[in-house]
Amino acid sequence: MEYGKAWLNYRRIEEKSFCKYLTGIYSQVEDDKINSGIKELNIAFEGMYGIKIPFSRWETDSGIQLKISSDLSKEEYYIHPNGNVFLIEGGSSTGILYGIFQLLRMLMEETPAKDIAVRKAPDNPLRMLNHWDNMDGSIERGYAGESFFFQKNKVMVNERTRDYARLVASVGINGVVINNVNVKQEATRLITKEHLKELKKMEEIFAAFGIRLFLSLNFAAPMELGGMATADPLSPEVKVWWKEKLKEVYEHLPRLGGFLIKADSEGRPGPFTYNRTHADGANMLAEIIKPYNGIIIWRCFVYNCKQDWRDKKTDRARSGYDHFKPLDGAFLENVILQIKNGPMDFQVREPVSPLFGGMSATNQMIEFQIAQEYTGQQRHVCYLLPSFKEILDFRTYCQEERDTVADIVSGKTFSRSNCGMAAVANTGNDLNWTGHDLAAANFYGFGRLSFDMSLSSEKIAKEWIVQTFGSIEKIVKNISQILLNSWETYEKYTSPLGIGWMVNPGHHYGPNVDGYEYDRWGTYHRADHKGLGVDRSSAGTGYSTQYHEYNARLYESKENCPEELLLFFHYVEYSYRLKSKKTLIQHIYDTHFEGVDEVETMLELFEEVKGDMDTDVYNRIAARLKEQLLHSKEWRDIVCSYFYRKSAVPDEKNREIY
Amino acid sequence: MEYGKAWLNYRRIEEKSFCKYLTGIYSQVEDDKINSGIKELNIAFEGMYGIKIPFSRWETDSGIQLKISSDLSKEEYYIHPNGNVFLIEGGSSTGILYGIFQLLRMLMEETPAKDIAVRKAPDNPLRMLNHWDNMDGSIERGYAGESFFFQKNKVMVNERTRDYARLVASVGINGVVINNVNVKQEATRLITKEHLKELKKMEEIFAAFGIRLFLSLNFAAPMELGGMATADPLSPEVKVWWKEKLKEVYEHLPRLGGFLIKADSEGRPGPFTYNRTHADGANMLAEIIKPYNGIIIWRCFVYNCKQDWRDKKTDRARSGYDHFKPLDGAFLENVILQIKNGPMDFQVREPVSPLFGGMSATNQMIEFQIAQEYTGQQRHVCYLLPSFKEILDFRTYCQEERDTVADIVSGKTFSRSNCGMAAVANTGNDLNWTGHDLAAANFYGFGRLSFDMSLSSEKIAKEWIVQTFGSIEKIVKNISQILLNSWETYEKYTSPLGIGWMVNPGHHYGPNVDGYEYDRWGTYHRADHKGLGVDRSSAGTGYSTQYHEYNARLYESKENCPEELLLFFHYVEYSYRLKSKKTLIQHIYDTHFEGVDEVETMLELFEEVKGDMDTDVYNRIAARLKEQLLHSKEWRDIVCSYFYRKSAVPDEKNREIY
Repeated sequence: MEYGKAWLNYRRIEEKSFCKYLTGIYSQVEDDKINSGIKELNIAFEGMYGIKIPFSRWETDSGIQLKISSDLSKEEYYIHPNGNVFLIEGGSSTGILYGIFQLLRMLMEETPAKDIAVRKAPDNPLRMLNHWDNMDGSIERGYAGESFFFQKNKVMVNERTRDYARLVASVGINGVVINNVNVKQEATRLITKEHLKELKKMEEIFAAFGIRLFLSLNFAAPMELGGMATADPLSPEVKVWWKEKLKEVYEHLPRLGGFLIKADSEGRPGPFTYNRTHADGANMLAEIIKPYNGIIIWRCFVYNCKQDWRDKKTDRARSGYDHFKPLDGAFLENVILQIKNGPMDFQVREPVSPLFGGMSATNQMIEFQIAQEYTGQQRHVCYLLPSFKEILDFRTYCQEERDTVADIVSGKTFSRSNCGMAAVANTGNDLNWTGHDLAAANFYGFGRLSFDMSLSSEKIAKEWIVQTFGSIEKIVKNISQILLNSWETYEKYTSPLGIGWMVNPGHHYGPNVDGYEYDRWGTYHRADHKGLGVDRSSAGTGYSTQYHEYNARLYESKENCPEELLLFFHYVEYSYRLKSKKTLIQHIYDTHFEGVDEVETMLELFEEVKGDMDTDVYNRIAARLKEQLLHSKEWRDIVCSYFYRKSAVPDEKNREIY
Repeated sequence: MEYGKAWLNYRRIEEKSFCKYLTGIYSQVEDDKINSGIKELNIAFEGMYGIKIPFSRWETDSGIQLKISSDLSKEEYYIHPNGNVFLIEGGSSTGILYGIFQLLRMLMEETPAKDIAVRKAPDNPLRMLNHWDNMDGSIERGYAGESFFFQKNKVMVNERTRDYARLVASVGINGVVINNVNVKQEATRLITKEHLKELKKMEEIFAAFGIRLFLSLNFAAPMELGGMATADPLSPEVKVWWKEKLKEVYEHLPRLGGFLIKADSEGRPGPFTYNRTHADGANMLAEIIKPYNGIIIWRCFVYNCKQDWRDKKTDRARSGYDHFKPLDGAFLENVILQIKNGPMDFQVREPVSPLFGGMSATNQMIEFQIAQEYTGQQRHVCYLLPSFKEILDFRTYCQEERDTVADIVSGKTFSRSNCGMAAVANTGNDLNWTGHDLAAANFYGFGRLSFDMSLSSEKIAKEWIVQTFGSIEKIVKNISQILLNSWETYEKYTSPLGIGWMVNPGHHYGPNVDGYEYDRWGTYHRADHKGLGVDRSSAGTGYSTQYHEYNARLYESKENCPEELLLFFHYVEYSYRLKSKKTLIQHIYDTHFEGVDEVETMLELFEEVKGDMDTDVYNRIAARLKEQLLHSKEWRDIVCSYFYRKSAVPDEKNREIY
């Protein structure tokens, strides 16, 4: 199947000052990663300048030189001119590879050669993508076609595997989980010989780009594969089974990064079945794979998914903290807890999980979702970087300084090295990788941010636009504007002030205000004729008390609570005046109308670039923007009607509310 | 797979006065049907009395005699004692077979022999079941396991086919459509040689019980099977294709009753695609199969399934009449329009379709649904006969007398002979045929009612109970009470006063008040803070004007409208006083609490028969009743909460509304 180049689209550029170095490439070391890097340079230079350059066996006093430098940490690079030589230094060949991609990025941005001097080590030790691909080729929450890792219960390794690795490495991702965290059917058998051979080929391709392969494990594998009567992590037989099994896996895949596990969640088996703790479960596996430098990544998405909506005390938002906080310090060093970016589930707006800063003696990673499950499913534009930045910049007050989420997941706060950032991937075998062409900005942006958390959303957007579409000013300006406002716009026409949900159950696309209101998933808005919102203060579910004092106090009262989270933390009457002096109900009406207006603006901005963009790409994006406009109206009308019918308060502006 | 005997459960009985006739059976004629009947008599007598009786070659002056009588119409029977002989007379061997089943029914009810004298011709010419079975074995809207007609894309003919035919014939069904009206994939190929051989075996078994086999057709078959570019019913090539194809079908299945077709509905192809009318489509096929005495049954379930909820003029309830009324008189004599029992879709309460009485020059059948899609899906008890009786007894005022729906579908009103009753079947390969043991009462009851429309719901219930569970007084009394109240009980705890829907979209199980409110299916309740209901008077959608004058006037005003349909026809404020003097909102609260109380009573009544019933059966039913109780509470709480949150009117009785 055909597919595009995404941002590795080395088009001819005007700025040619770097060409003076294109006399030859010399490398101090040779290995797979260096080979990948040199190949990339060749593809790029041919695309950008139409020049092929020779590989030189000897160090000369001109051209490009790739060198290992002991001053640099393993994945760090330092790229800079040095007389007639342009030096790409790295702490290892992986660092050099990252340096190459950084150089190419700057060249595509038409940076003059003299201005290219960058030294950078990645901010996060682990920078991962989690693919929720199933072995039958389907993708859970996939909005860009089918899997390119699996088809018909087989592992697939082909040219696209390599191009995927190029894309991923170019933005600094160093770990990839290829199969769905919900491990069922054939996927349970991924760790058997039948599949290990193909996986080995994949592992090798990934390794040539500094990427470690990870797999999702089925905790019940001893029963389903081993035919045992139990999967109790403390059973000696179970341990022996895992030990043998994982030994076999590592014999085939010596560079395997480790395993991701979703246990005791939404019907998945886990240690709870045997009255064991999550620490018992995770540590058992971690101990076994420690000799192979393997890591166990344990997901913290554990909650009661059979809540009764009449029950106003149980609170899904609390459950992560309630389950895992007591286990702080109980996990082995090669276990990492992976914590979703919202305590509920990837809503367009949620507070930061109180587990960040709540646990000080446990490795933690944050899990974002660039698959737009709740943010328009890649039919709508929703550039998520501004949201990720807000979350990373959030101060937890777990100590006096270096207390942000970014500090915690990068390991600074508690001096940890098994930590970092993960994202649920938004890719598939669609021509353009991400269904919506503009959704690739989230793919690109997550990687870049995980490598360099100081990058702004604007900078990342601009980098991506220039590499993908070229540097025509109008494109850069208009697409930037579309992307940068899109998250807030999406928030405006969907669920208000942090309350979330209001989507159709199951597939999660499109508005349905009461869709989850009487369901068992713990996701309620509690709207009645007087107001809406969930009381999560100490008088309500008590969730707010899970935060350190400063934040706890902020969230405790309606007056201090950040307004964008007001309904997440409080039940508020429709007549309540917000800081804008608007009533809550008028705010709901106004934001929904504004949201639609903003989508109209997006479409206008986009139509202005018609002549400057490849026609196929233009048509694809325009069609989705038109759909977004239609669906944003659907959202506006359904949400406004719902609250108008419920509150009986008319719109002050007299617009038509159905 | 094992399965039960349902109501053909000939248990030992006390009343033995009929035994005097058990000296021999003589039959004037011999054919498959007579053989079926004699076999049935033998099974029954052995079960009831432990007696085997000989088949005698000569007419004697004692025993049972089966005779053809020219005084009787084809399917009519006359059973009665005549000296030492008990005569089972029929207008044909089919009539005799029905007489046999009538005799056995009365014997199982322990009727003394001297009281058995019944002459009866079926009230409806056609008495049909429509199975929505797919060839992969699944059943659309099936709640009793998988198909016993198809598995893995093959037709299945086995012992269960015969036992199915026995059950069906015993209640007087004379036509069966075995495949889903939504004809897709392999089912399109049912009319190819590959499947016709097996179908022939099925046809023969059915014929031996007086049942005609029917198939659902794919209107686009000329394209999908014939590889043609069109399925235009007026295209000469298309006609030729159908002619050849149906000739081939009838060569294999000479007794095939004909075809059921759902066209231009919910995404199914049809004549509209080619700007042809439904009459063009139906007549083309009817003409072709007329020489084979075949019938085309054309479903009238045609509506705009992409309605915008903001549109208050379009009305799904109107669409059947709007589409078909103009075609009255345009259909050939061997075409029958099959009309759903509600103009919307099988809700627990709907008005009668105005097409009954609205069309006077067209053959019509009524379509009921005993598959409990919207009435508890065979998890809840909902005995539907009282509802069917109400519908059949409805006066259309299309003429001064003989104007009820029963008169129309039985052919009396307009002197027609291609007409009758059909029901969407509720069977599957579950042990007990219908998932819920008590759901078999609908299976049994629909057949009995289609044969004899004068039977009361009570009589049918009693017959079924005695045959299924025996005649222990407490069982008869308690199960009767459970059955007879169950429809009203179900109505009470679900959607009020004819408004319908309020179910989860897609699968249609469980409460979801706004589930379809903003959807495209034309199914809205229009609830706001002041009231709810759909204005279908002349000032609203005008649906009420589709009825003849008397009914139209009744439905036009809130005051005259039958209250059980009030919200179907009118938007009514919560404060409106019903005839009970209760406000609408209080009625909603009260009925929902009453509904749950009544389920509790059902469960109590049922628990009283514990010792008198087979333990397995008891446990199965008890488990479902408990589930029903739980889910009726769910319905009560969700519906009451919804309207409380919306109306802000508290319950006068101060019960807890969540």
